Amino acid sequence: MVNNMKNNPQLNRNGELQHLLTIEGLPAATLRHILDTASSFLNVAEREVKKVPLLQGKAIFNLFFEPSTRTRTTFEIAAKKLSADVINLNVGASSTSKGETLLDTVDNLAAMQADMFIVRHSQSGAPHLIARHVAPHIHVVNAGDGRHAHPTQGLLDMFTIRHYKQDLTSLRVAIVGDMLHSRVARSQIHALTTLGVPEVRVIAPKTLIPACAERMGVQIYHDMAKGLKDVDVIIMLRLQNERMRGALLPSAQEYFKYYGLTTEKLALARPDAIVMHPGPMNRGVEIESSVADGVQSVILSQVTFGIAVRMAVMSILMGSGAGSKQ
Amino acid sequence: MVNNMKNNPQLNRNGELQHLLTIEGLPAATLRHILDTASSFLNVAEREVKKVPLLQGKAIFNLFFEPSTRTRTTFEIAAKKLSADVINLNVGASSTSKGETLLDTVDNLAAMQADMFIVRHSQSGAPHLIARHVAPHIHVVNAGDGRHAHPTQGLLDMFTIRHYKQDLTSLRVAIVGDMLHSRVARSQIHALTTLGVPEVRVIAPKTLIPACAERMGVQIYHDMAKGLKDVDVIIMLRLQNERMRGALLPSAQEYFKYYGLTTEKLALARPDAIVMHPGPMNRGVEIESSVADGVQSVILSQVTFGIAVRMAVMSILMGSGAGSKQ
Amino acid sequence: MVNNMKNNPQLNRNGELQHLLTIEGLPAATLRHILDTASSFLNVAEREVKKVPLLQGKAIFNLFFEPSTRTRTTFEIAAKKLSADVINLNVGASSTSKGETLLDTVDNLAAMQADMFIVRHSQSGAPHLIARHVAPHIHVVNAGDGRHAHPTQGLLDMFTIRHYKQDLTSLRVAIVGDMLHSRVARSQIHALTTLGVPEVRVIAPKTLIPACAERMGVQIYHDMAKGLKDVDVIIMLRLQNERMRGALLPSAQEYFKYYGLTTEKLALARPDAIVMHPGPMNRGVEIESSVADGVQSVILSQVTFGIAVRMAVMSILMGSGAGSKQ
Repeated sequence: MVNNMKNNPQLNRNGELQHLLTIEGLPAATLRHILDTASSFLNVAEREVKKVPLLQGKAIFNLFFEPSTRTRTTFEIAAKKLSADVINLNVGASSTSKGETLLDTVDNLAAMQADMFIVRHSQSGAPHLIARHVAPHIHVVNAGDGRHAHPTQGLLDMFTIRHYKQDLTSLRVAIVGDMLHSRVARSQIHALTTLGVPEVRVIAPKTLIPACAERMGVQIYHDMAKGLKDVDVIIMLRLQNERMRGALLPSAQEYFKYYGLTTEKLALARPDAIVMHPGPMNRGVEIESSVADGVQSVILSQVTFGIAVRMAVMSILMGSGAGSKQ
Repeated sequence: MVNNMKNNPQLNRNGELQHLLTIEGLPAATLRHILDTASSFLNVAEREVKKVPLLQGKAIFNLFFEPSTRTRTTFEIAAKKLSADVINLNVGASSTSKGETLLDTVDNLAAMQADMFIVRHSQSGAPHLIARHVAPHIHVVNAGDGRHAHPTQGLLDMFTIRHYKQDLTSLRVAIVGDMLHSRVARSQIHALTTLGVPEVRVIAPKTLIPACAERMGVQIYHDMAKGLKDVDVIIMLRLQNERMRGALLPSAQEYFKYYGLTTEKLALARPDAIVMHPGPMNRGVEIESSVADGVQSVILSQVTFGIAVRMAVMSILMGSGAGSKQ
Repeated sequence: MVNNMKNNPQLNRNGELQHLLTIEGLPAATLRHILDTASSFLNVAEREVKKVPLLQGKAIFNLFFEPSTRTRTTFEIAAKKLSADVINLNVGASSTSKGETLLDTVDNLAAMQADMFIVRHSQSGAPHLIARHVAPHIHVVNAGDGRHAHPTQGLLDMFTIRHYKQDLTSLRVAIVGDMLHSRVARSQIHALTTLGVPEVRVIAPKTLIPACAERMGVQIYHDMAKGLKDVDVIIMLRLQNERMRGALLPSAQEYFKYYGLTTEKLALARPDAIVMHPGPMNRGVEIESSVADGVQSVILSQVTFGIAVRMAVMSILMGSGAGSKQ
């Protein structure tokens, strides 16, 4: 259990990306390197044989302690396009129910000659715990932990914005919705501020804004009309159904009335503003269908770019100095 | 969302197979092309390396909204023998439970650079809906929708009959059992009549024959002794257990007595008649073990031929003009 | 259904390994051949591309009638490192619930051009039944059946002991724990005695020792202090939680007190004794954490060696004379 990564466990002693756990604390150059690498993978989809042999013979484990077919699939596709072998594990259903500890499960899979773990867990910090624990030739990617982070989602969002807007340093970006429970929002905000976006707004009811929001360098709005004024990018967050049953929100109809993105509200943004959503969408709750399917929507491009971004992350991690056994 | 396929959504403007949704309405030449192509794949199993690189780098999604390990596995094997990458999705358990619409799920998977969807759904018509919706470079295969169609099963049955009987234009074929609830029977009848089989009989109790049966060009029998007389091919249908609990049938024993295929009843058919069943079999309900395992049974050959037929369908779809991105 | 294997269904007429069902009755030379072949696969993990093309185009079915993510994963990884295609089937959830018989399920999968079945089943003898039933070009590996056998676990344990101790013919080995319910223990004892280990001890409370134990050539101890004295190898067995709820054992605490392996008890063994466990471990029940993670523990090496041993078994089976279609 070597650990040279006390300060930033994501970077090795050469400053190369060893794990991808959170966007917080990563240098802008690292983020740009990922986005540039992703650009080079975009055209793999246009080739006759849509694969590259970069990770041939590598074993990538999808280690999902919380089920998510959609996210698991994007990583599986990205890994297969890199010619890696993918092992899918829904761990909730197996070893943990046999009383084994998380780290024993990880040690066992590592001993099966894993090269990379893609980890989703309902507990914030679980991927960090695993990253600190594994041997240095094994890489960990956080695929969503509790309310903490979902860094590949944040990165694919940056890729999308850069694709449509080129220069990020003159943009106004609004994130709309349930920031309180959203690991996606946290990763987006860290990425946007690191990459020099001068104005990041969060628009949400008071009950869905966390205490830490202002410290993160965002401007807070409770009114859509004011918050969307003249923005270049609108990122809608998914409203999880269980929130609406709780005390935090009155009803889906009420939420849609005040915070749902309609054609009318979209008109307040800049005319060339793009509309993003991490999916899956609740049509008629956080977004109107005419907007979701409209010309300003880039929601499906986000998904496509997500494959290229995940290919970039995987290939960069496996290529880092610590990636080869000493 | 281009759609040049209003009249027959399965064929593109060049008359090539774009999707395989139902056998109904497909020209005999198209069916024969599939069967001929399947013949050429049969010998792949005899090679030292039992694979061909035809679909290398293609991503084929098994999109099963209704679970079926057996059917899913046959498509998975066929795809892997063509060197495609296979992504298995049991969608019932994931996105749909998050309130996402069917078409949003499909759009998302398509944006992950899918080349083909193999779709099973409990709702008749769901694969059509998806085929009409996707971009023209994506192909859809119906792997069973509601009570409507199961075209690859119908095709593998035709392959089997042609393999053992060569000329289809002089055959008497009897389909025995629950036609009312059987998408398999519907696909078989369309295939048999399209390929010129002059006499197709359906043998079943009145409660298990749909109103549309006579319009489909079959002869209806309620008596096994009469229906099986001098036939060349006997296709048994699976009796689903839930039917026996309902009002449509008295009991499994009673059903077996009147409609179960026994050695005795089989003797009424031509001496060289073959016995088929789509599986899984209920031994002692619709078929006696001595018949299922007897010399006239070709039930396991159907399974083997099913792999070759599915390889043929996949490779033909991917090779059609619309299969390459414009 | 040819069967030339009445006497020992695991060996073909040339004495080559046709199936791996149990270690009982296998010649020492066969075991040594597997271990030697596994040694040659160990270094595959050190290569730049960690795969060999030995089983390219072969279809290996993980046929698990009893769920076990861990064991299934080790076979999946081993098969993929040999470049085989792997089909994972959790059969409990599918065909058997449709009323199909075990052998009908197997026949169907065999007709899908399977080359090998890896079988786990809660019923002792199920893999034998399948091996007797399938055509001679199909190979069966028992991945654990009831309380009967788990031969690849036994083999990887032998590989581990040989790796650390070289000469097996001068060793004292103690197996500690619930031998009564353990297929692992049975396979270990057969392997140890076949390979010439002169002294095999079983240490357990009387309620967890089967009647057949003495006939297997082991010495029985109920006292850890006496049983561990001067042994070279300690193999801990997993205590299944359900045993502790039954009448066989008082409590986990009580069990740990008498039969849990602590640093103190470990000191009774030879100073260079190694500690093994098949996993998953119950820390604080059958083994103390300081021992599990201590310098004498080789538990994670067992897992790594398990991949190489399973690669060896698969490649030997596929290379045997009956492995090529006649």
